[in-house]
This record gives sequence, structure tokens and C-alpha cells, in this order.
Amino acid sequence: MIKVGIIGGTGYTGVELLRLLVMHPQVELNLITSRGEAGRRVSELFPSLRGFVDLEFSPPDGAALKACDLVFAATPNGVAMHYAPGLLEAGVRFIDLAADFRIKDQSTWEHWYGMEHACPELLDQAVYGLPEMNREQIANAQLIANPGCYPTAIQLGYLPVLVQDIVDPTTLIADAKSGVSGAGRGTTVANLFCEASESMKAYAVAGHRHGPEICQGLNQVASKNVGLTFVPHLAPMIRGIHATLYSRLKTRAPGQDFQALFEKYYQDEPFVDVLRAGSYPETRSVRGSNTCRIAMHQPEGGDILVVLSVIDNLVKGAAGQAVQNMNIMYGLSESTGLNLPPLLP
Amino acid sequence: MIKVGIIGGTGYTGVELLRLLVMHPQVELNLITSRGEAGRRVSELFPSLRGFVDLEFSPPDGAALKACDLVFAATPNGVAMHYAPGLLEAGVRFIDLAADFRIKDQSTWEHWYGMEHACPELLDQAVYGLPEMNREQIANAQLIANPGCYPTAIQLGYLPVLVQDIVDPTTLIADAKSGVSGAGRGTTVANLFCEASESMKAYAVAGHRHGPEICQGLNQVASKNVGLTFVPHLAPMIRGIHATLYSRLKTRAPGQDFQALFEKYYQDEPFVDVLRAGSYPETRSVRGSNTCRIAMHQPEGGDILVVLSVIDNLVKGAAGQAVQNMNIMYGLSESTGLNLPPLLP
Amino acid sequence: MIKVGIIGGTGYTGVELLRLLVMHPQVELNLITSRGEAGRRVSELFPSLRGFVDLEFSPPDGAALKACDLVFAATPNGVAMHYAPGLLEAGVRFIDLAADFRIKDQSTWEHWYGMEHACPELLDQAVYGLPEMNREQIANAQLIANPGCYPTAIQLGYLPVLVQDIVDPTTLIADAKSGVSGAGRGTTVANLFCEASESMKAYAVAGHRHGPEICQGLNQVASKNVGLTFVPHLAPMIRGIHATLYSRLKTRAPGQDFQALFEKYYQDEPFVDVLRAGSYPETRSVRGSNTCRIAMHQPEGGDILVVLSVIDNLVKGAAGQAVQNMNIMYGLSESTGLNLPPLLP
Amino acid sequence: MIKVGIIGGTGYTGVELLRLLVMHPQVELNLITSRGEAGRRVSELFPSLRGFVDLEFSPPDGAALKACDLVFAATPNGVAMHYAPGLLEAGVRFIDLAADFRIKDQSTWEHWYGMEHACPELLDQAVYGLPEMNREQIANAQLIANPGCYPTAIQLGYLPVLVQDIVDPTTLIADAKSGVSGAGRGTTVANLFCEASESMKAYAVAGHRHGPEICQGLNQVASKNVGLTFVPHLAPMIRGIHATLYSRLKTRAPGQDFQALFEKYYQDEPFVDVLRAGSYPETRSVRGSNTCRIAMHQPEGGDILVVLSVIDNLVKGAAGQAVQNMNIMYGLSESTGLNLPPLLP
Repeated sequence: MIKVGIIGGTGYTGVELLRLLVMHPQVELNLITSRGEAGRRVSELFPSLRGFVDLEFSPPDGAALKACDLVFAATPNGVAMHYAPGLLEAGVRFIDLAADFRIKDQSTWEHWYGMEHACPELLDQAVYGLPEMNREQIANAQLIANPGCYPTAIQLGYLPVLVQDIVDPTTLIADAKSGVSGAGRGTTVANLFCEASESMKAYAVAGHRHGPEICQGLNQVASKNVGLTFVPHLAPMIRGIHATLYSRLKTRAPGQDFQALFEKYYQDEPFVDVLRAGSYPETRSVRGSNTCRIAMHQPEGGDILVVLSVIDNLVKGAAGQAVQNMNIMYGLSESTGLNLPPLLP
Repeated sequence: MIKVGIIGGTGYTGVELLRLLVMHPQVELNLITSRGEAGRRVSELFPSLRGFVDLEFSPPDGAALKACDLVFAATPNGVAMHYAPGLLEAGVRFIDLAADFRIKDQSTWEHWYGMEHACPELLDQAVYGLPEMNREQIANAQLIANPGCYPTAIQLGYLPVLVQDIVDPTTLIADAKSGVSGAGRGTTVANLFCEASESMKAYAVAGHRHGPEICQGLNQVASKNVGLTFVPHLAPMIRGIHATLYSRLKTRAPGQDFQALFEKYYQDEPFVDVLRAGSYPETRSVRGSNTCRIAMHQPEGGDILVVLSVIDNLVKGAAGQAVQNMNIMYGLSESTGLNLPPLLP
Repeated sequence: MIKVGIIGGTGYTGVELLRLLVMHPQVELNLITSRGEAGRRVSELFPSLRGFVDLEFSPPDGAALKACDLVFAATPNGVAMHYAPGLLEAGVRFIDLAADFRIKDQSTWEHWYGMEHACPELLDQAVYGLPEMNREQIANAQLIANPGCYPTAIQLGYLPVLVQDIVDPTTLIADAKSGVSGAGRGTTVANLFCEASESMKAYAVAGHRHGPEICQGLNQVASKNVGLTFVPHLAPMIRGIHATLYSRLKTRAPGQDFQALFEKYYQDEPFVDVLRAGSYPETRSVRGSNTCRIAMHQPEGGDILVVLSVIDNLVKGAAGQAVQNMNIMYGLSESTGLNLPPLLP
Repeated sequence: MIKVGIIGGTGYTGVELLRLLVMHPQVELNLITSRGEAGRRVSELFPSLRGFVDLEFSPPDGAALKACDLVFAATPNGVAMHYAPGLLEAGVRFIDLAADFRIKDQSTWEHWYGMEHACPELLDQAVYGLPEMNREQIANAQLIANPGCYPTAIQLGYLPVLVQDIVDPTTLIADAKSGVSGAGRGTTVANLFCEASESMKAYAVAGHRHGPEICQGLNQVASKNVGLTFVPHLAPMIRGIHATLYSRLKTRAPGQDFQALFEKYYQDEPFVDVLRAGSYPETRSVRGSNTCRIAMHQPEGGDILVVLSVIDNLVKGAAGQAVQNMNIMYGLSESTGLNLPPLLP
């Protein structure tokens, strides 16, 4: 059994991580910390977990965390980096679901996250936990930077065509739509039911923190600097990301079989599902599951390739991917505890 | 392994049953029939099941069904009764998720369902599959009438006080709110997104088919004829039933401890969760799970008892309860395959 | 033209009041105050009002308010009572959309609202602004207590039967469902999209502030103390209240024609619409309008009368009713500026 | 007063047209036809219109329609073209809210709409009713092709930059998100609440009928053939279109002031609102109104211009624009009957 601790389990990422971990046959949940809710039963805050989690939130306690085999941080950005050095030194493995270790370049990170990094010396060591890209490094990693939700959906959609070098990497456009849970459980006017329901809007068009994260990954596979326009939107639903990915084909050769290309690329991936030609993935088809579903279209046979990629932002875009990383790190079957059909309708 | 067949798996009850059965360790899914979709892959109709169900819908075939140990009918009302005699004769056990065998009195059934019953001789033999009421009979039953969604939420809320005889059984009022999935996957204007979203309405106030079903059960436990006013409402959500149950206390004795009464009554029930005093159950707290959560209130210490009872109409109100019944019938732990935390948010 | 001022226009009641006032042909909007948003353009906070409202929010300024003919308070409870004495003394007419003047009994008010009343001497003078009950007093009033949203829907449903004395007034049960906008624009976790969407729950069953307000009104028409059990619920929609009202008929005389009774009672009311017999009012059928729609049912011909009453909580339940009161106070046609068809779908 | 008839008023476009026309001071509503609902009161089908529309649906009757000054067709595609010749000959003016006269090229129309055109000789005469593009021709037109919802939002967003020739017209990408009412009131599984709620998906990526309509308009203003990739999406809301429009700037000259360009271009337009720099239009900010709100962004100062354009698909995208066209045709102030603030929240 893996002795697991969680730092900061009061947000949507935290409750989703708990939902998955209590179904995991190899996990023993040792503690969940929260400064604000210390002493309160987890199941009082999240009645959905009654009967599954008996723990109380405990105050952050270094010793107790260090007694774990693995610690997840489901905290706001800028918190995990204060725990990482001590935990790593104590031999604990660490998966940060926030952004503290996602960007390799310190100054880029500090620019986008507006704070000084507390342990830049660990940035190199951290492995970007997108299994479809970095499975081998993940297996041996002590520190995992769990990818963001948009970056997961977008990178998985672009990977095959960038690796195959069949599109112009400098004119990528990613138009993404996210459910409101992506904005977290913080109380802001914009996330109120009466503000977010029955409406759509774009946001952060001038620049979103996930932009450099996506580019870092795509640069790696394209072996050059990609040019990406990334526009996120808020959609009136709780869960789900729908990424609509545009790229320009280098040649309009009629013989190109994108369907076969994607199917082959992802044939061994347990959590990437390439739909049949002509399909339209719906976000609800992955609700509550760790699967990313993908379909490709070439409108009117032109030189634009449209890739549609959907995930549940709280699962493959956060907690589920973290568990997938844990499974890889501990040599378990990658889908252990994650082999759950989506909830539909 | 239990060899299972499903008649009519194209509705919401069907897809939910499939979701639960593919996670069940003792079930081998042999066939799913559908006249309309025969030959089509199940996972094409329900992409959420890609990777979990490899079957195609097959035309209804008596021989194949009779080769099963257990058959579920997830059909419209009036279909299962045509399959039941043959299957029972062949020794197959049969769980009807529709209403064909719920009402013991043939003429009452025929009045409310507007058709002649095809096998009234089986009505006595059928066991009403509410485990909290009829667990022992279920264990030995060959034919189960799986309860309706409203009846499940409402009976579970009223059972303890009627058994204890502390309320006037003749003035019960059940005000229930259901998500739209309760109306099924049929294409009617009223169930369109643009009709059902952002709105609430009552319906069938003059009389709803679930009324006699509820009364039949409550009569049994009250040992007399109850008087029930049942008003269902359509709420703008996919899943969930919230039943608000009013009853008049026989005595307003200050010492009555409803909390203790309910907790004791349901202490051994794996799928009824009595919340802490003063709680308000939310339907989302049981989304995707087989649990019924209950809380009691006595407004201003008066003589009205208000019981709040929530379920997921597709799980405890349909497919989950059917699986629970199957577990009981086969001597399995009652929560086998059902021990799933709700999906929240 | 009526020179109008608004105290506190940053909530949902405020923006709705603005929407209605800018369409009103006899209103000149002079100022809108807000401590928190002073100096900000109203249309910046509410882009829906671009092109309709050119004002900035201004700091609360007694002199400017006293220069108005009429002031609306769309503030949290406990604010208007600090403005009322000065404004009334200056001859300004005052409509409070909050609860400060709704309850005649000072100690009852102070109990339910948890504060000392700042001007109890005005409670007698204040007219409860439900036109269907108090039209004549409203016409001559200087101080109006605009009714709460639940009390409007519930009183309008019970009035005809209590006035006619055909039901037992001591066993009333009002089960009400409200959209989330009823909870205001304040940022609490419970009102977040991801908390309130796809779920239903009851709240305040032990006692809700609108309870004594409703009883005060019903006592008046019943000429005795009514007994009311009032259970509010939160429904996953922005606007709308659906009140399901149960009462016990004194006699089950088959000749009683509730339809005719209600139609006659409300025949001259511009904003109460009695639907045809057998109808089910939907909240969306009054979205954005000042109309209350009502239908009656007598389930299975028994002794329970079920009245269904729907309003838009922000219009007939708040801002629209305030404008209706203003029209009455100024001798205008009661529907001036309010003759707007609902927005459907 | 303009004597108005409506052919086919049973869909969402029809009920919205009725909502607007009953508030229009210069309109006298003479008849509404429907084959399926003939003889039924309009207000029975749409209770929101109780008290506003006293008419019954009548069977399609040429003589009665010819007695009108103006006829709107709110029918499925392919119906209006059978009425147009007779009505025009009788001197009636005709506005088709469907697509029968939108495409000038007969064979293109027949290809996309899958039927033979009944009166191709009228295609030249028909004026495409986008006032911001064709105001003068509309004034004198007898036959108006009211634009589609997507084409309205998308053309209004692209017009200024194509007229000014500052972007490459061959690499346009329009990613659009529509509420479900855009799919009409027909009963298909995909439009059910339980299918469309809590989910997003793209559709018709291979080619959507609105594509050629958009290109026809953009070609006209660009004076050359544009290249457009148009991807529509279904969003879980009733009303609203959010178009996210990508184009490549010809020069990345830092001095380009898109804000000023758009503001100047639309300065005299009553129904196009260019938001302040840095804004994000929300679809709810135009709910129920005829306004199109637009904002521009240049991500990270690069060579991609992102224009955000939102409308209410049933108003500016259908019924409201039809009324705007009527106002122009009859020399009325263009905003007569349309000067309504949006409904928010």
C-alpha cells in the first residue's frame, strides 16, 4: 500500500483526488491538510464522501507528511514549492497538481505567476507529468509537475501532427472552452451561478498562464519554437474542456490519412481514445473519467486541420492524471483505480 | 460469474445499468437487445462506454435471453410482461426496471397504465425490490419489480415514522422534485433543453402512476390505508430527486428524538445515510451513487415533521437498485460493484 | 416626470430595477448610490445597461437623495431604515425593496433579522406593498415595504381561499422553490455555479425570515392566526419562484368551483393570471415579467387543494412590484412600464 | 399601422418575433399561420404570451396573407419560397427568417439545402437583410432574406477589418458557440435537456450551411474570395452566440489602433456596441436584445487579431433583426420597438 498525504484538499481538485483515491486498491490515505478547515471532518465539507473518508482535515504538519510515501499538493499556485524541498529531502515522492513546477524557465514562471520561485533548483529535476509525452521519466521521478487542464487537452491534440511534422507549427490556434470548475472553488462574483449560467465569454485573450506551459511542451515535440494563439472561454457547465485546435497542413496531399496517424500514435495509450472518422467528441462523454477523446476533421478538404479534444478538467486535467502518474511511479498498471466509465447522462 | 442479459438498453436507465454492470466483478454481460438499434454498437450510441462495452445491440431473441442467468428489462412500461413468463419458465431470474410488476392489484395497475396486463398470474410472485423493506423475499425471488424513482425516495423517507406509528398516516404530503432524466430519453417537446432549462413546474398533480405504488408500500408498513398527496415537479437538472415529505405528529411530545429514531432504523442499511441533525441533503451529494441521504426537521418545534430524502433517480431510483437487488439475489455483498463515491462537483 | 433615486444598485434587485426604470416613460433617473462602487459607471458593472444608463454610482449623499421625488432602496436588510426618517421628513417618498419595514411587530422583526430596528416609530406608517391586498393604502403611502419574493408568490396563491374561508387556515403547507438569484449577488460558496448547478436542496426549514412576513399577511385576510409550514428550496436556475401550496378544504362539497373562485377574485388584477383549469404554470412563462400565474388542482377529488403559483423573483418578487407600487403611488396606470411579455425560451 | 402576418409561428423564432411585435407601436398583428396548430390559441402554446396575443393559429390562407402589408416567414427552410411569388405579386412585402433567399447562387443554395429552389428568379431581387451592410437596399426592398444567426455575429465581427483591408482574407477562422435554441424547437435526441446540458461539442465541421452565406457577405466587402474555416459548437445554454474570430494582420505595425477603427466603423450603428479596450463580451449581456457587442484583442502583440462578437441568436440573429429590417423598410426609427435592455441576470 502506498501511504498517501494530501496538502490542501478543500478545492475541487482536492475533492476529486479524494474520490479517486478512495477507490484505489493500493492507496492508504494517511492525512489531508488544510489550514482553514483543520479539525473539520472531510465528509462534513464534502457530504459526497460520507462513508468513504473518515479523516479530519489536519493542520499542515511536516513530520506527518514526511511519514508518507507520496504527497499530493492540491493547493493554490505558490504553495507546493514551500513543501517540496523538505519532502524530497525526506525521501517522499511529490506530485504537485498546481503550477509550481510546470515551467522549466524560472523567469518565465515568475513572470506569469507573479511571485518569486521558492526553490528554482528543483525545476530541472521536476518531471512534467504528461504520461503520453514523458512516461519513462515519470516512472523514476521523485517530483512531478502535474499538467494544467488546458495544456493536457491541447497538447494531446497537437502531439501527433507536430511529431509527424505535417503542420506549420508557427500558426497554431487553440480555441478552448472550459467548465466553471476550472476556476476553482474560490468565491468570486464571476463564478456565481447567476453570473456563469446561461452565458459564454472568452477571457485572458491577451495571455493566459497555460500558454507558456503549452508552448514548452509543444516546442519539445516540434523541436522548434511553435507559434500558438490560445483563447480560453468559460462555458456554462461544471466539468469539461473542449479544445478546438486549428493548424495549417504543410501539404494538402490528398493521401494523408489523419485518422490512421492519430490511431497509430495513440494505439497503446490507455487514456487517449481516437474516435471514428467523422465523430464529434462531447465533453459529457468523459465526465468523471480520465479519458481524452479526440477526433479530426479537414473542412472541405482544405489545408486547415481541425482537431477536437475533450477531457474532464478535474480528472485527466487534474486529479485523474495525478493518479495516473502515481500508478506509473509505483509500477502499477496505469489504469489502476481509474478504470471507471464516465457518468452519462 | 452471473451471465446477464438486458432487454432494451437504449434509454437512460439502460446506459446507467451498463455503466454499473461493467464495473461489477461478478457479472458477465452476454447480450443487450434493442429492436430499433439492433446491429449498432452500444458504444456508438453511448460513446461514454467506449472501451467498456464491446457488444452490439441484438434483436430480441428468446433463446439467447434464456441462456442467461439473469435478465434485466430496461424497457418502457408494458414490455417486460411479455418476456417474463417465458424467462421464468426457463429458470431465468428477471428484474424489471419498469412498472409492469410493481402493483399487486391487477385492476389498479391496468387503470393507471392504461393497458391490459399480459401475465397477471405473476403479480403475486413478483417481489417489490426495495431492499430496505423486502430484503428477505428479494433473496429468494425469481421475479423482481424494481421500484420507481419517486417511490424509492418517498418510501425511504416515510418508513421509519410509519413503522413507529408516530405520525398521522392519513395526511401525508410528498412534494417531490425530479431531474429531467426521470422523463427518459424519448423525444418530446417538454424534455428539450430549451423547454426544461431555467424553469420549474409541477405536473400530474391530479394523479401520477407512482402514487398507487407509494401507497401500496406505505400501507404495508403502516398496516392501514395511508392518505397521500403526491405532487411531482420537473427541475432543471439531469439527475436527482429531492423529496420533501410532510407528516403530522400524533403527539408533540418534546422528548421525541427523530434523529435517533432514523439513525437506529437505518443503522444496518448500506445505502441509506441519515445525515447529522440540522442537515440539508443536496441531490448532487448522491450523483452517480446508490445512496439515499435523509434528514429530518421539525419547523419551530411544531407538529409537522419534515423529512428530506434525496437519491439519484437513475441509480438508487433505477439501475443501482436493480444491481443491489441482483447482489441480494445471488448472495453477494450488497454493495458489490456499487461502492462508488458520488461525482461532486 | 418622477425624479427617482436608488440607494444601493449593485445587486440583482438593483440591476433589475434599473432595467425596468429605463423603460418607464414617467421616470427620470437622478442618481444611484453605492459606497463600494462610487465613481464607477453603472454600465461598466452591468454591460447589459450600456446605452441605457449613463450614470456613475455616487457615494450616498443625503442632499441629492432628498432632491428626488421618490427613492428606492435596493440594499441589504438593515440599511434602508437608516435613510427612511430623513427622507420622509424631507417629503421624499420611499420604497424599500429589502425587509426593514415589512414586519409590523418590532420585536418579531428584531428577532428574525438579528438587529435593533433604527426607526420603529415608522413601522406603523409603512404600507406593505402588495397591491393585490393593499392597493388603496399604497396610493397614499409615503413609505412602502416592498414584499419579499416568497411572500409574494405564496400570499397571492392563498389569498382567495382564505378570504373565502373555505380551507383550514391552521394546516397550511407552502413548499417553495427559488432560483439562485434570490440569494443575491454576494459571494458565498453555496451560490457558486459549481455548487448550485445540477442540484436541489431545501434550506432554512427550521425557520425562514419570510415565514413571519407571510403569516402577517395571511392573518390579516384570514382574520385569525394561520398555521403555516414553509419550506424553501434552492433550484438550479437563475430566476423564478414556484410555490406549491397545500391546504385542507373545510368541506369536500363536490360543487366547489375553485377555478371560478380564483378567476373572479383576480379578474381585475393586471398582474395575476389565473390559468385555465388543469394547467401547470412554469416559472419560465413569467421570466422577466411582473405577472404571477396561478393554477389550482384537487388531487383525486380529495380534501387537499393544491395551488401552484409562479413569479419571477426579481420582478413581481422585487423590482417589478416596486415599480407597480410607484405607479399606484403616482396615479399612473398600474402597468406603466411593466407591460412586457416574458422572455421565452 | 403596419398590417403584419406571420407564416409559421410555432418555433422559437416565431415566439420571439411575437414577443417583439406585440411591443411594437406601429404593428397590427393580423394573423399567424400554422398547419399543425391551426385552431389553437397562440397563448395556449406559449403561455408567456397570455394577455399579449389573442389570436389563434390559422391554416395557411393566401388571401388573408395577401391582405397584409408585410409578411414574416418563421418557417423551416424551403417553405417561404413557395409563398414568396404570390405575395410579392400581390404587393405584399416579405421577410424570410429562414434561408430560402440568403444565397444568391442558385446551385450553391441547392447544394447546401438539398432541394430545388422553387423561385430562383427572385434570388436577385432579394436583399440580404444585414442593415450594417445593406441598409439602403433594405429600405426599398420588397423581399428580405433575413441573415442567419452565425452569419450575423461573424460578419459584424469581420466587416471593419476586411473593409479596411488590414488582414489576410484567405486565412480566416471563425470558432462559434451557440445556445441550443439555435437548433430550433424540433424534437431530436440531441436537443434533449439530458443530452445538451452539462456538455459541449463541435458539429458540422466538415461544412455548415452558414459557411457559404458568411463567405458571400465577406467576399462582397473584401472584394475578393475569402478563405474561411468555420467551426460551430453547441453550448449548454438557451440563447446566445459567441463568435471568436481569428485573422492574420497584414502588417504588425505597432501603430494600428483596432479599437478606434471599430469604434469609428460602427459609430452610427444603433445595434452594434464596440466595448472598451480589453473587454470580454458575455452572451448574457445581450440576452433578449438586438445588440451585437464586440471587442478586439491582439494576443501578446502578435500578428493574430482576435475579435469577439456576441449576439442573442433569437434576436439580432433572427427575430430582432427582422423587426429592424421592417423598421428600415417602413421608414421608422430603426430601433422602434427594439429599444429594450437585455435581461441580466
